[in-house]
Amino acid sequence: MKQVYILGGAQTDFARNWTKEGKTFMSMFREIVEDGLAAVGMDYDEIVRLNKENRIAVFVGNFDMEQYANQGHLGAFLTEVHPAFYGVPGARYEAACASGSVAIDAAHTHIRAGDYDVAIVVGIEIMKTVSSAVGGDFLGTAAYYEKEAKGIKFPFPKLFGKLADEIVNRYGPKLGEQRIMEDLAEISRINYGNAKRNPLAQTRTWYMSKEQACSRGTSTNALVGGRLAISDCSQVTDGAALLVLASPEYAKEFSKKTGRPLSKMAVIKGWGHRVAPLTFQAKMEESKNSPYLLPWTRQAVLDAYRRAKLDIDQIDVIETHDCFTSSEYASISAFGLTEAGEEYQAIEDGIIDFEGNANGKRKVPINPSGGLIGAGHPVGASGVRMVLDIYKQVTDQAGDYQVPGAKNGLTLNIGGSATTNMTFVVGKIEE
Amino acid sequence: MKQVYILGGAQTDFARNWTKEGKTFMSMFREIVEDGLAAVGMDYDEIVRLNKENRIAVFVGNFDMEQYANQGHLGAFLTEVHPAFYGVPGARYEAACASGSVAIDAAHTHIRAGDYDVAIVVGIEIMKTVSSAVGGDFLGTAAYYEKEAKGIKFPFPKLFGKLADEIVNRYGPKLGEQRIMEDLAEISRINYGNAKRNPLAQTRTWYMSKEQACSRGTSTNALVGGRLAISDCSQVTDGAALLVLASPEYAKEFSKKTGRPLSKMAVIKGWGHRVAPLTFQAKMEESKNSPYLLPWTRQAVLDAYRRAKLDIDQIDVIETHDCFTSSEYASISAFGLTEAGEEYQAIEDGIIDFEGNANGKRKVPINPSGGLIGAGHPVGASGVRMVLDIYKQVTDQAGDYQVPGAKNGLTLNIGGSATTNMTFVVGKIEE
Repeated sequence: MKQVYILGGAQTDFARNWTKEGKTFMSMFREIVEDGLAAVGMDYDEIVRLNKENRIAVFVGNFDMEQYANQGHLGAFLTEVHPAFYGVPGARYEAACASGSVAIDAAHTHIRAGDYDVAIVVGIEIMKTVSSAVGGDFLGTAAYYEKEAKGIKFPFPKLFGKLADEIVNRYGPKLGEQRIMEDLAEISRINYGNAKRNPLAQTRTWYMSKEQACSRGTSTNALVGGRLAISDCSQVTDGAALLVLASPEYAKEFSKKTGRPLSKMAVIKGWGHRVAPLTFQAKMEESKNSPYLLPWTRQAVLDAYRRAKLDIDQIDVIETHDCFTSSEYASISAFGLTEAGEEYQAIEDGIIDFEGNANGKRKVPINPSGGLIGAGHPVGASGVRMVLDIYKQVTDQAGDYQVPGAKNGLTLNIGGSATTNMTFVVGKIEE
Repeated sequence: MKQVYILGGAQTDFARNWTKEGKTFMSMFREIVEDGLAAVGMDYDEIVRLNKENRIAVFVGNFDMEQYANQGHLGAFLTEVHPAFYGVPGARYEAACASGSVAIDAAHTHIRAGDYDVAIVVGIEIMKTVSSAVGGDFLGTAAYYEKEAKGIKFPFPKLFGKLADEIVNRYGPKLGEQRIMEDLAEISRINYGNAKRNPLAQTRTWYMSKEQACSRGTSTNALVGGRLAISDCSQVTDGAALLVLASPEYAKEFSKKTGRPLSKMAVIKGWGHRVAPLTFQAKMEESKNSPYLLPWTRQAVLDAYRRAKLDIDQIDVIETHDCFTSSEYASISAFGLTEAGEEYQAIEDGIIDFEGNANGKRKVPINPSGGLIGAGHPVGASGVRMVLDIYKQVTDQAGDYQVPGAKNGLTLNIGGSATTNMTFVVGKIEE
């Protein structure tokens, strides 16, 4: 597979509430484009030059701006950021919470097909424009609204609460319910803890401990979906992330012209994209005969490994879709870190923890950024933010949350109740 | 460019009102998938077989199901049609009224990149779920809502009314306003007339004449946006269209296996994609120095010709985005049928008319299907319906609206006030 280069990118501070600042999604587009291009060292003249030859395009990942901010047609909004974008092809890509990843997919494919040399991918979501109850209803449109969300307050915690139930049903007889719930709390603790090292994480100043995460059903940690409590949930927020992708030829030319070293670039080595049965019930019915709770999530990971020609043994860091602790739990075996049903080992041994030495075992930290639980989950931005974070890891630019010596990383971005599953393997450039 | 094959497809009857029938978008998904696969001769077993090798994907074009039917994540809904789609990659693609075309773009690109052998593209929109005033407000999200639509009743007729104003401003001094308005009425007459030959057109039983189209501002033809009246507008409706695209290798194998002749397949020869400044005002300011009212529309056409290695002389039929008569008027020179400012010639000489002989001049019928004005405009479906119609033309399957001997055709699908412009050249397979 022709490798597509990542020149760099940026994200907004996910702790910001843009509505409270008196700003709109348009302000967010302006800031992320300015910051993203500055991070890469690309100016507007270069965009104009590329566009004269029809060699640049824009890909916007967004879940539901129609409802949150009464705006569609987001692929056209970069023309409002700067006239350099007049005439540049653009569109909006959506797969619920995996919208950012399907935008990357389209950009990545157009470059591999030889259509464009440069693709600007923006993932964006503004969610604090409405109350959390209204926002929860909007999020219900990522499930099968009529069957799974209509009239239900906060449908997604309930759906992923059912995933926790299923984990307990399947593995409880062996492990015991309490141990599973403590392992889920450990996932929460790790993600919140990691967020403290990420200067752009939403919860970097918030308090969380293992004890707090275990105190489900108390006044400070209310239950929100079956066995799951507030501490098991990712955070709704406002945010955007941007990546600049390029053909190998352009990346090398750009490096020569601007002095930006290839060591500050990475490559997309593989990807996977699988859509599981839409409703949670249909998913569980189908997976009865599989060792995996989420077999299509596993398959999306396998597809990425196959295309990248590597395996979990060569993956040094993972950014996963911990919309809830239960989704991260189920993904551990999907990555191949353990067999299905033995996810507890990777958690209890400290394999996925950024901190500690895991008793000498090979570590594969999950979500050094803090993930969706710690860094925040502005829905359409998350898939782009994940790839940006892995890009930072494999180019040694992750600062306080750097995994030392990371060469290859994996992302898993899911939409709905693990319906859309999209993965990317991003790696260091081997020269 | 590697050519992607069109195996065939289907559309729903655009005269249907699914809400009145007690049916939802889900019923529409079921019917269009069943009909589309039957038209091509592909069964669910074949989808399962292809998916085992990760060689098939689904691409859904949709503008705003979030608001019309409270549902996002449409790329996952084929799993609700049939379990054969479990695990098949899918996503939703949006560029306002050009959503169908950007879905085709993604599918077409993935096949060219060698990722998939088969792509199922579905364009879908259900619009009669709400009143026309509410629906008009939803459509405003295809413009810059805050600047161009908020608090405005039916913003789009007003925006394209301004385009009519601009046509009159620029060409009126030479042609006179009355002549321009009569030419716009002629566009309306042709589209309604063509629709009568299309058994799936929304207006096939409606009444329209040149006189009626000219009687703007009367009780039976009210003004809706500046100089434009009801007769100048395309029709909101419910509808879906489906195309099956394939790699050349698969198409030939499929033909051999099923007996479906290559003469019932066509190829995508070229495409163009350009995004003009978002607001109508910015568009007009930028185009002041261009001979074309919509220079990026012209460029999208030129890009398609360049990729297809042909010109207007080899185009035998066009399906264009006549959301209003003014958009079709401006597109005539964009296609290269006339110089900019001389669009009136192609209209008055009968070049674009399906009927008549144009006094021996070479004809290039526009919208033999009836177009958006005659066939109907279920927003997300239109781009797919256009390519389906050109496919029918170049494979001699257009029935009563067949353009005799058509070898190559062009589509122009626009989003917003001619903001997103996407074109495809579709042609007969040359063996």
